[in-house]
Amino acid sequence: MDLDTNAAVVVLSGGQDSTICLAWAQRRFARVAAITFDYGQRHRVELGAAHAVAAAAQVMEHKVLRVSSLAELGGNALTSDEAVTNELREKDGLPNTFVPGRNLVFMTLAAAWAYQIGAAELVTGVCQTDFSGYPDCRAATMAALQTALREGMAAPFTIHTPLMDLSKAESVHLAQEVDAMELLAYSHTCYNGAIPPCGTCPACELRAKGFAEAGVADPLLERLGQD
Amino acid sequence: MDLDTNAAVVVLSGGQDSTICLAWAQRRFARVAAITFDYGQRHRVELGAAHAVAAAAQVMEHKVLRVSSLAELGGNALTSDEAVTNELREKDGLPNTFVPGRNLVFMTLAAAWAYQIGAAELVTGVCQTDFSGYPDCRAATMAALQTALREGMAAPFTIHTPLMDLSKAESVHLAQEVDAMELLAYSHTCYNGAIPPCGTCPACELRAKGFAEAGVADPLLERLGQD
Repeated sequence: MDLDTNAAVVVLSGGQDSTICLAWAQRRFARVAAITFDYGQRHRVELGAAHAVAAAAQVMEHKVLRVSSLAELGGNALTSDEAVTNELREKDGLPNTFVPGRNLVFMTLAAAWAYQIGAAELVTGVCQTDFSGYPDCRAATMAALQTALREGMAAPFTIHTPLMDLSKAESVHLAQEVDAMELLAYSHTCYNGAIPPCGTCPACELRAKGFAEAGVADPLLERLGQD
Repeated sequence: MDLDTNAAVVVLSGGQDSTICLAWAQRRFARVAAITFDYGQRHRVELGAAHAVAAAAQVMEHKVLRVSSLAELGGNALTSDEAVTNELREKDGLPNTFVPGRNLVFMTLAAAWAYQIGAAELVTGVCQTDFSGYPDCRAATMAALQTALREGMAAPFTIHTPLMDLSKAESVHLAQEVDAMELLAYSHTCYNGAIPPCGTCPACELRAKGFAEAGVADPLLERLGQD
């Protein structure tokens, strides 16, 4: 299958990382579409952020795909009533926000959609420097998955991970380089789904630390009048 | 994550191949569960066959997982009103029954469930000798996917494909070896969803040819009183 190497599908959660990736992709590719997964996450505010970011970025097309199957399989705090904690769970030494297979499923569905719209390039904000311990965010996983997608659909997909090896401060600098600051005012990150962000969950702490280290004000907090 | 290498999840569509794989797995592993995907396939008779086969096999657990996302992405004859034909479509030279990424999504969800129930072994009936031209049925795809699943979930999955290099006649012989004939009486294959099977679609032709070449009566046709 021939696909356009100047067309990209960005996996957009509505969070900081995927928002920066969307701006990055728009600088690099002529046609950029976004796909957002509604997988039963408890915090619907994430989906709202994805809509706002996609609209502000004027993407070619924004697909919101319902993926009920991950929540149905259960076993994690993002799709259940279990509280999000900083502690690692006993069974696998991973955070209780780990949804096994999540990024594999998302990237595969993103590729399936890219196949339909003729796009060869896939962009995701996964980052192995997060220290969140998610095995599906590692470069080795994405390299293996790229091979599986190419083989499985006989199509020349490339997975781009512009944030893979960046610190949070470096990704804030990248955001400035690719003019993502305006979009970031609509992004969302808090694991507890709070607006304004709770400021104390691992995701909020990571975001705050990144902006602080980069010496840049968080445009989301500025928009909400907190900074 | 530690997983039990004596426990398996079989991807069970309710068709001939996955039914043989279920019997094969029950011979080989102490604990065998089955997962069936309801992905909006037009022919609900497939799901009924999966239920009947799983019940007859007395599997440890049978999970039926709704995957609406593939049908929502569209572009194939199995989830739309488009007629199934023997002709290859122009855009990618594949049959119009090809659902891009289908087996990748199914195997990944099967692995996510296996992770939850502690099973290391994944079994699928994909077969590259089918000549159906599906790139996601090839050994190279399954090998790449196994690597992606291991990396992405940090778990020691093994994908078993007992039919990968068998002709249809050889897989009928395997069915005899693993005592799958009784289960096969409840399996289903017809792409047109007909009961009794239409006998003329590619799937029916392939099944009939296999049994004929093996010199064995199809237990499904015997059950339906057609043989």
